[in-house]
Amino acid sequence: MSQMNLAAMLASGRLLKVGGAHDALSACLVEQAGFPAVWLGGFAVSAAQFALPDANLVTMTESVEAARRAAAVVKIPVIVDADNGFGDPLNVTRAMEEYRRAGVAGVCMEDNVFPKRCSLYGSAPRELLPVAEMCEKLAAARRVAAPAGLLLIGRVESLIAGLGADDALARANAYVEAGADAILIHARDFGPLRRIALGRRVGKPLVAVPTLFPQITLAELTECGFAAVIYANQLLRAMVRAGRGLLERLHRAESLAEVDPLISPLSEINQLVRVPAEWNVEDPPAAPPPVEKVRSARREAVP
Amino acid sequence: MSQMNLAAMLASGRLLKVGGAHDALSACLVEQAGFPAVWLGGFAVSAAQFALPDANLVTMTESVEAARRAAAVVKIPVIVDADNGFGDPLNVTRAMEEYRRAGVAGVCMEDNVFPKRCSLYGSAPRELLPVAEMCEKLAAARRVAAPAGLLLIGRVESLIAGLGADDALARANAYVEAGADAILIHARDFGPLRRIALGRRVGKPLVAVPTLFPQITLAELTECGFAAVIYANQLLRAMVRAGRGLLERLHRAESLAEVDPLISPLSEINQLVRVPAEWNVEDPPAAPPPVEKVRSARREAVP
Amino acid sequence: MSQMNLAAMLASGRLLKVGGAHDALSACLVEQAGFPAVWLGGFAVSAAQFALPDANLVTMTESVEAARRAAAVVKIPVIVDADNGFGDPLNVTRAMEEYRRAGVAGVCMEDNVFPKRCSLYGSAPRELLPVAEMCEKLAAARRVAAPAGLLLIGRVESLIAGLGADDALARANAYVEAGADAILIHARDFGPLRRIALGRRVGKPLVAVPTLFPQITLAELTECGFAAVIYANQLLRAMVRAGRGLLERLHRAESLAEVDPLISPLSEINQLVRVPAEWNVEDPPAAPPPVEKVRSARREAVP
Amino acid sequence: MSQMNLAAMLASGRLLKVGGAHDALSACLVEQAGFPAVWLGGFAVSAAQFALPDANLVTMTESVEAARRAAAVVKIPVIVDADNGFGDPLNVTRAMEEYRRAGVAGVCMEDNVFPKRCSLYGSAPRELLPVAEMCEKLAAARRVAAPAGLLLIGRVESLIAGLGADDALARANAYVEAGADAILIHARDFGPLRRIALGRRVGKPLVAVPTLFPQITLAELTECGFAAVIYANQLLRAMVRAGRGLLERLHRAESLAEVDPLISPLSEINQLVRVPAEWNVEDPPAAPPPVEKVRSARREAVP
Repeated sequence: MSQMNLAAMLASGRLLKVGGAHDALSACLVEQAGFPAVWLGGFAVSAAQFALPDANLVTMTESVEAARRAAAVVKIPVIVDADNGFGDPLNVTRAMEEYRRAGVAGVCMEDNVFPKRCSLYGSAPRELLPVAEMCEKLAAARRVAAPAGLLLIGRVESLIAGLGADDALARANAYVEAGADAILIHARDFGPLRRIALGRRVGKPLVAVPTLFPQITLAELTECGFAAVIYANQLLRAMVRAGRGLLERLHRAESLAEVDPLISPLSEINQLVRVPAEWNVEDPPAAPPPVEKVRSARREAVP
Repeated sequence: MSQMNLAAMLASGRLLKVGGAHDALSACLVEQAGFPAVWLGGFAVSAAQFALPDANLVTMTESVEAARRAAAVVKIPVIVDADNGFGDPLNVTRAMEEYRRAGVAGVCMEDNVFPKRCSLYGSAPRELLPVAEMCEKLAAARRVAAPAGLLLIGRVESLIAGLGADDALARANAYVEAGADAILIHARDFGPLRRIALGRRVGKPLVAVPTLFPQITLAELTECGFAAVIYANQLLRAMVRAGRGLLERLHRAESLAEVDPLISPLSEINQLVRVPAEWNVEDPPAAPPPVEKVRSARREAVP
Repeated sequence: MSQMNLAAMLASGRLLKVGGAHDALSACLVEQAGFPAVWLGGFAVSAAQFALPDANLVTMTESVEAARRAAAVVKIPVIVDADNGFGDPLNVTRAMEEYRRAGVAGVCMEDNVFPKRCSLYGSAPRELLPVAEMCEKLAAARRVAAPAGLLLIGRVESLIAGLGADDALARANAYVEAGADAILIHARDFGPLRRIALGRRVGKPLVAVPTLFPQITLAELTECGFAAVIYANQLLRAMVRAGRGLLERLHRAESLAEVDPLISPLSEINQLVRVPAEWNVEDPPAAPPPVEKVRSARREAVP
Repeated sequence: MSQMNLAAMLASGRLLKVGGAHDALSACLVEQAGFPAVWLGGFAVSAAQFALPDANLVTMTESVEAARRAAAVVKIPVIVDADNGFGDPLNVTRAMEEYRRAGVAGVCMEDNVFPKRCSLYGSAPRELLPVAEMCEKLAAARRVAAPAGLLLIGRVESLIAGLGADDALARANAYVEAGADAILIHARDFGPLRRIALGRRVGKPLVAVPTLFPQITLAELTECGFAAVIYANQLLRAMVRAGRGLLERLHRAESLAEVDPLISPLSEINQLVRVPAEWNVEDPPAAPPPVEKVRSARREAVP
């Protein structure tokens, strides 16, 4: 359903903005907001769907199920974060076949050892897979991805692991050689990434994830030659922030009417999930102000 | 894990406020906000996890999986919305056994025919199960629920179906007779519900879901004798509202820094999902204002 | 993977023999035995994978998962038994999309009401869906099946329900009109089925399931004009029979060597599941006769 | 449901015979045959349910689902093969919680590195986890198992890996120290295992899996002091052997009647899956001999 032309989008010369989602509904929100593609990130899926750290605790089966549910409801291409492919080349092969069946358009695979620790987690020492092993995994992934038209993104953790830009570049090129259609070099700050990108020495489109260097502008990314930017987890974080606010308010509210200004109308949810029109969906009549509020307002109004 | 004493909570004499969630993370948010119990509603789970209307499109397997994921991460009791029990008494029995294994503390079952239409959907004519059939289903549910200490809530759709308060009351009492530990009478407005509650003729605790009469206060519910109130979908709706706002902004932002004020810090997500402390999680240093903003601020500052 | 040309097979003029399986391995066995297509039946999947009666207790999710696992490992087309489509046309639509993603080549849907009772279960009165409702469901199924090249089999339960051959024929034609690509009329004996088939008045290929009239020959089915025959559950039943025998023996055996003649060598399992050759799989050396046996043989040999 | 007293069984002084199953129905067969416990092995589940080699290709989610389905339908305790725990101690913790919820009575965990290769696969060099790492995993498992009353079996692969009996014994004792309630030392031949067992130096009950030394008798195992023997995959292998035979026959049969002697009657399946008596289940009337057979019998009868 969602296997639109992701490769063409990356080759278009315009920076592709990919919105990060964490479940089916957030994927719909990304699509409705006009993003041309959606990213289903491991950090966000682990957090939202399982309340688990991003550390290979979510299984391949669960990741595929998340992908399937999202791909089932959006028309824009879904790129799924396959972490480190859940094991060795055999695990990668099985995972790729499952992702393909799930209807995704792209898969990203990184060179962390199994089990991984999220790249956003601190500065603890981090071991990467030997280049040759990662290349075997990418080659296995490619054997499924290529005939199915799936975009394969090779993700390089060298900068996160403190191995430096040379290692990152070497890995990027090895991964391209092994079959990656695009390269995502993760980083904690933009400096080394900028130098690598400006060097123009990676033979495939570069993808940026600016979670940890949020001040970088689209103009800069474009100048450096990036083909795509992934807004990986901001949607989840905005929703958590709002959810927390709502609950704090609700916990001490005298009535639901007090939180009305904070919530979407039911009709908006119904429209998002495509409730058939003939089901006569209507919102309740606008709520009159809650009695308590009226009373307190009156008291305050008393001179 | 989460099978705390739900019956005792309902019998406490104080109105129990139950926060509605739609996935594991939102269940954690409900718990952290101080709610003593969490509701996993069919409307919210269908919408968030599947982007599907609330119409028995989510299978028992999927509902149980949602319950399992939530119950795995919170200590407060989880009450799951089992819709109409997914079929006849045999389906109910299997569903109840699965819910029990999933670790929920309570299950709510309603008298809509299969497949159901959400009670929030318009005023279309609606058929309910014959009372005797619903009672057989509740009896089947009770045979699993009682020995396992699960609270069984019988949900009455008479008012939604336009069958009037007498039918609602008759069903409520029949469902209590059949084994329900509490009764939830769904309604589009509070009037008839108030009269039923004030009549004090239902032999078990009453649960209110004021989605469609948000102006009703806790004081009124308490006065009427309700034992619990469920805030079924406000959390989801607040998150959707915020998510939509974030994406609109992000879609035209020059950098992630522009949305920083709208999102939770990573550390907050990490704390929610219990990232081990030894992983040295830290947020990125506070972002300097994005270059574009600085420039435009400067331009504006020029007299 | 397995979407080979099922329509062409049915149109070939030769009786298509479809082997029934109940899990991934039995699907492989069917393929290896030379059957050109595999049937994943509700009766067999419910029994083998869940030890449950065939009564809509297995959910759509579980049925799709069974189909996915089978379709992932065979190249021959998989036809899945979708029971009654798990609800109304909306449920059918979702189920069909999931089956499509699962990689099946054909889907069979029957006109039992939900929840169903297996057609092999006794002579209890049985209610069928009104023809118009079943046609709506088939039309919904067809909207997913046709563009995806999935074969849609409409299954008629009139004879099982005691509604007679006229009702069966009328339903068959209505289902063809609604979009069925083939028709399966279930029956407890062959007489009425023969007459319907010989009448040559169903506009699409006819499929036979001779579970309850095992003496009917392929020659007779061919003569009557059937396009396919499904051997729905004999494989499972042979495996259960053998399993039971093995366990009885094992329960009183002094050593595993006693059951050696009853079991496949490990190498056979390894070949079936495609263990890579480089893993050096070998069977253990042929077991010498167990000591007990040798002793008792000696005793018997003593004159 | 199935958490009966597995520890008591192991401590009874009589050799516990554990029957291996691969799905819900085979677990029922094991129970009906009179075995007091059932083993759900990785080799058998991978093969039967997925047609995949036993090499950590089946995910934790899938293994837990297999365990849940089996534990739901038998009363005897289910011991599940958790392979190597699917990763590090965090993965083990999550897996154990899921197994607990699934209703198993015991979990077996081995010291193969992830991803593993089945111990039955050839003589390829094999790396084991460092003892300390395995002990951390067992300790993590024990933290979930002990309060839940789950039996934890530590499995030692030293003999399979060619590390010798001293390593096996050292690991066995380390694993006991770390929290294992029983020890399973896998082996390709019985010699070294016999010596270890006769040494009586492992502080917990020993479990044998004689797949590769089938001639060893129960008397010998008892003499050596084993507390339990697991018949891990013979049931599956008997079923595969019979299934293959059935299909060969069916592939060239003129009618189903020809395979009647090879299959269980429907009533046997119905009894196994507990079809309610009121559904009037009956087998079809005994089939008359197929026409072809009658004819050929007649021809033969002609003098």
